[in-house]
Amino acid sequence: MAKILYGKPVMEAMNRRMTAEIADLKARGIAPTLATLRVGDRPDDVAYERGILKRCENLDIGVRKIVLPLETSQEELMATIREINADDAIHGCLIFRKLPGNFDDDAVCAALAPEKDMDGITEGSLAGVFTGKDRGYPPCTAQACMELLDFYGYELKGKKAVVIGRSLVIGKPVAMMLLGRHATVTTCHTRTVDMPSVTRDADVLIAAAGVAGVVDSSYVREDQVVIDVGINFNEDGRMVGDVNYDAVEPIVGAITPVPGGVGTVTTTVLADHVVQAAKKIAAAAHGQ
Amino acid sequence: MAKILYGKPVMEAMNRRMTAEIADLKARGIAPTLATLRVGDRPDDVAYERGILKRCENLDIGVRKIVLPLETSQEELMATIREINADDAIHGCLIFRKLPGNFDDDAVCAALAPEKDMDGITEGSLAGVFTGKDRGYPPCTAQACMELLDFYGYELKGKKAVVIGRSLVIGKPVAMMLLGRHATVTTCHTRTVDMPSVTRDADVLIAAAGVAGVVDSSYVREDQVVIDVGINFNEDGRMVGDVNYDAVEPIVGAITPVPGGVGTVTTTVLADHVVQAAKKIAAAAHGQ
Repeated sequence: MAKILYGKPVMEAMNRRMTAEIADLKARGIAPTLATLRVGDRPDDVAYERGILKRCENLDIGVRKIVLPLETSQEELMATIREINADDAIHGCLIFRKLPGNFDDDAVCAALAPEKDMDGITEGSLAGVFTGKDRGYPPCTAQACMELLDFYGYELKGKKAVVIGRSLVIGKPVAMMLLGRHATVTTCHTRTVDMPSVTRDADVLIAAAGVAGVVDSSYVREDQVVIDVGINFNEDGRMVGDVNYDAVEPIVGAITPVPGGVGTVTTTVLADHVVQAAKKIAAAAHGQ
Repeated sequence: MAKILYGKPVMEAMNRRMTAEIADLKARGIAPTLATLRVGDRPDDVAYERGILKRCENLDIGVRKIVLPLETSQEELMATIREINADDAIHGCLIFRKLPGNFDDDAVCAALAPEKDMDGITEGSLAGVFTGKDRGYPPCTAQACMELLDFYGYELKGKKAVVIGRSLVIGKPVAMMLLGRHATVTTCHTRTVDMPSVTRDADVLIAAAGVAGVVDSSYVREDQVVIDVGINFNEDGRMVGDVNYDAVEPIVGAITPVPGGVGTVTTTVLADHVVQAAKKIAAAAHGQ
């Protein structure tokens, strides 16, 4: 029987810290504010946006919800981002991606100011994740994995971490963050030969394959900590992770559930990035 | 008896390709030109500079050798970099680092235009290495490892690659480049527990520990390909790698010598980056 690493207590601990920080900022006349930028009405985006609005409302973080129609031009979208960059009352921005239609995604990412990039999409944020320097913000999901491991007290130094997946939103950044904590880090992917033999060697396994239930009992052994980043829907419409939970949970030492694990923490990390961005502004103002 | 992976034939093959490319560029009125920027007279820098000048002269690549005195101010150094950025006759720049004295290294790196960054020091180049997008240029030493593996025909897809070291000049970028070639990549470092057990599992081992001879016979097994990135000097003043060559060479399948391996290719990669930068300018001009 594994220890179940629920996201809720992680979220609650982060909320308590943030609530104090937000009160402090407001006392100094700064109202942490996020801009959300959505193009079109894709149901995934609308659902995520609803979650963000609720989370921010609960924390008393302001949200400027910007929605552009599908027929928006590249130049109009870029102009909107430049307005967000220039608006001192907005501390961070989340752009719902992947963008619909034929937008130049690289140009859109490049247009956002790194200091307002809350989800690791700009060159500045990506270089920050790669170098370990304080520049921009890492992708929220990658940081959510680290928040879970920290909250439950797992020491990473000298441990073997294996990451399944090499995307820019989770696999590569979480590998860099684990390396920054002095883990020995292996990245697996679709071309890896005999993946179970690699993942069974891990102390900490991050499953970000994007395939429902691909991590089965052959991938794991006792005492492992398994972080399931997957959000998939099975044939019954039920949300499932990348880990076959029923097969893996009886074997390993600890596991995050889906839903109720990483996903629960991700939106809280986004809110935290807004608070940290507002704190940087406050510190810079104080320094002047 | 291992196959010895000498750098010289790699360099010669690259030189043949570049010679044709440079002739083509010159026929179109473009003289590929590198600016070298050195502050002070550190012997390592002077020796590397001499190697670069010779390599570029042999290839008919122009060099603007800029040397600033130790007492140069941050602002003067930044102004020099801005002049290099603005000079259309200069296609790339190499800054000798680490800079002496108390320069703000981050600011210096940020000042250089990514498209003229020949050695992976700008945010743009680092983000390019991390994302795999065509942006800036990777650190020359990291690319030299890949050139060696390519020249000698080692397929990386599905292979296990282990990198010792996590620096920004070699460990992290070469890990990303190996991942881009679909290897399963593990990064080890000083905090790795029982490193020999990890490195013995590699098909390809990149040794970039920065410690003379640290990779001994316990780290390797038969059939491995070992790339030694180390440049160290032993008590006799002899140049040695991170691999204990005499102990490792009889065991593994292939190994680069030091000197005569990676280091031989690194300056050639720098020259190649200048040629590629000049070709991009030419292509952009042609596209107008």
